[in-house]
Amino acid sequence: MTMDLHEAALAYHQHPRPGKISVELTKPTEDARDLALAYSPGVAAPVREIAKDPENAYRYTGKGNLVGVITDGTAILGLGDLGPLASKPVMEGKGVLFRRFAGIDVFDIEVDARDQDAFIETVASIAPTFGGINLEDIAAPACFEIERILSERCDIPVFHDDQHGTAIIAAAALLNALELTDRAIADARVVCVGAGAAGISTLRLLTALGVRAQNLLLVDSRGVVHADRTDLNAYKAEFAHAGPERTLADALAGADVSIGVSGPGILTPELLRSMAPAPIVFGLANPDPEIDPSLAHATRADVIMATGRSDHPNQVNNVLGFPFIFRGALDVRAARVNEEMKLAAVHAIAALAKEPVPAEVRAAYGGVELAFGPDCIIPKPLDPRLLGVVSAAVARAAVDSGVARRPYPSHYPLTSLEDIVYH
Amino acid sequence: MTMDLHEAALAYHQHPRPGKISVELTKPTEDARDLALAYSPGVAAPVREIAKDPENAYRYTGKGNLVGVITDGTAILGLGDLGPLASKPVMEGKGVLFRRFAGIDVFDIEVDARDQDAFIETVASIAPTFGGINLEDIAAPACFEIERILSERCDIPVFHDDQHGTAIIAAAALLNALELTDRAIADARVVCVGAGAAGISTLRLLTALGVRAQNLLLVDSRGVVHADRTDLNAYKAEFAHAGPERTLADALAGADVSIGVSGPGILTPELLRSMAPAPIVFGLANPDPEIDPSLAHATRADVIMATGRSDHPNQVNNVLGFPFIFRGALDVRAARVNEEMKLAAVHAIAALAKEPVPAEVRAAYGGVELAFGPDCIIPKPLDPRLLGVVSAAVARAAVDSGVARRPYPSHYPLTSLEDIVYH
Repeated sequence: MTMDLHEAALAYHQHPRPGKISVELTKPTEDARDLALAYSPGVAAPVREIAKDPENAYRYTGKGNLVGVITDGTAILGLGDLGPLASKPVMEGKGVLFRRFAGIDVFDIEVDARDQDAFIETVASIAPTFGGINLEDIAAPACFEIERILSERCDIPVFHDDQHGTAIIAAAALLNALELTDRAIADARVVCVGAGAAGISTLRLLTALGVRAQNLLLVDSRGVVHADRTDLNAYKAEFAHAGPERTLADALAGADVSIGVSGPGILTPELLRSMAPAPIVFGLANPDPEIDPSLAHATRADVIMATGRSDHPNQVNNVLGFPFIFRGALDVRAARVNEEMKLAAVHAIAALAKEPVPAEVRAAYGGVELAFGPDCIIPKPLDPRLLGVVSAAVARAAVDSGVARRPYPSHYPLTSLEDIVYH
Repeated sequence: MTMDLHEAALAYHQHPRPGKISVELTKPTEDARDLALAYSPGVAAPVREIAKDPENAYRYTGKGNLVGVITDGTAILGLGDLGPLASKPVMEGKGVLFRRFAGIDVFDIEVDARDQDAFIETVASIAPTFGGINLEDIAAPACFEIERILSERCDIPVFHDDQHGTAIIAAAALLNALELTDRAIADARVVCVGAGAAGISTLRLLTALGVRAQNLLLVDSRGVVHADRTDLNAYKAEFAHAGPERTLADALAGADVSIGVSGPGILTPELLRSMAPAPIVFGLANPDPEIDPSLAHATRADVIMATGRSDHPNQVNNVLGFPFIFRGALDVRAARVNEEMKLAAVHAIAALAKEPVPAEVRAAYGGVELAFGPDCIIPKPLDPRLLGVVSAAVARAAVDSGVARRPYPSHYPLTSLEDIVYH
């Protein structure tokens, strides 16, 4: 980060008041009558109704539009394990994105629990507060068990965005890159460099989308994850390869796709040159990708490149997904976010990138063309159509797969935040 | 509750959107630059600063103005143990009062933890989220241990309003009632009917204010809490009486003060007649007091009566205290709410009742006189001067007693919410 950005970010967070959110009132509180409705004695009425039927919590409280963004602070951004308190700006920031893009209220909750079971107990016990839970910045491999157990214990959607968010957006981008280069997903040789939360989840999703196991190589800091290794946790073992490849160079030689979720500079020009014609390279390490896009393009003119950065084309940004996935899930009161809903989000995001881009979106990005092509394989974060298409696809998939407790919303598709119906 | 109020309260909670609060953004999020400051990559700057010095969480996040209103749902209003979910309208409502009267942001957290230790662990582990914790609607006697342990474990104020809120407001009213009837507190014979959270805490506070142990009788459902009883928990035992009184009638005969925190109708006209001249009767059971005020006045013309009801004079309403106690505590970053701060709140509230009441406050209450006297021993909830005087007294006491981590605010006393400085 430049000193300029550092100082600007500190000023943004500090002035005119600390932080980025406030809690505001949605009902009148002018006089004694209002207060008698909002609190004692009137509040006893909704209390009694909820005690009779828990579903009434969605009718008389903010639960149905409220997501808990919850962390233990063990894997903050690319910065590592800095503890719960230091994670608060990130969690508040995630709440800002939920609110800004999908009208969802967020309580950010920073949990001081180093032990996996203690963290799970804490989150499960505060779950009645929320309509959904977004787990955030929790280190792998604990994050996998934490999400699995909480999803089972809670009757609301529990979603670890560091796993699925990156996976969903990267998968959408990949579908389009494969189409642009005339490849069938079943034939694509894919290498994933980095075996953390995002890497494992991406491989799972790509498998569901049709990448074949024999074409899929996972590489961690010790090389290719292969069947002879004895140091693999259960999550890596899921993707242990039977072939002869052992090194990153072995893996990338002739590969069609490289997805980096590891660290800067891993993908050297030499490695890039060894890949198949028209290679697809996602360098998603933040802030510095596995290979700098200008270096990649200088090395090979035929590369399709995506990064996590906003200052380059094809930004794989989770904000294309999580606000709208939760919007759709909340609006049909889904009990969880299942595979069907994630795949629906992938296809909706991929399809949107192929639509003509409205003038106001182009204006927001300096008037550039943004037509579907190698430099435009995913929508831009400020594209307002995401709200409509992704939430609709997710809601439809929830209904069709049987996890929704309400019908597909009659007010869908949404065209703006003003269209959201809170009920 | 009348059907009319019941229906009006349900409509208030349901329309135009469920619940009473929303989370809003305090910083611009218009363009890509704003988002780069609010989230990745800019957000790494405040994260690093907080990792270096935890105090920076108050500078760069909303922590310093954020209170968690947290319950296990075991003692909701007067309705009992209806569980965490049913308590949500009350907790949101408490948040509404914090925001409306003192500009404090509140996350309401409903905790599904029936076991005392599990509840404590949950609250302690989410404490980094908040600048203060208001425990609410937790059953006695567990509430005493819960508050004590959490106060020790957390470095932020932890305050159980059902204990101290009622105690503080009732004590302020009592000081004024004693003054109006020319009594010295050291000579007043006080009977407290009800040995739950509010009763025990009120007796503790009255003792600190000068009521003498031999003049103080606690009565529970089995009669006077006396030294020969073997069924007393530690909290009741603290107030076990050595005298000969055994029944409620024994206790009240000749008593100067009766404080009811029990249930409706306990104080019969006959019992009231047995009290000393110019008796002071606080019937604080909600919604129906220990004796109806009109019945009390019909029984004795010389009674000074207070209730928890807004439709009678002298409403003992916690909202006179907690918003401003937390405002003062947060603004000097108090590590806890200690006895000194509670006593300062008592004296500030009592003193305000003796000041001339501004026209706009009288207007809000139908133009009635509201001059200090038997029907006006405490301020009205909509008196905007409470913000200034109570928060200033609490902040001063925190500084003077050494629990403040910031100096007495230079912008105090506050005259309105617009005066609050968030920093």
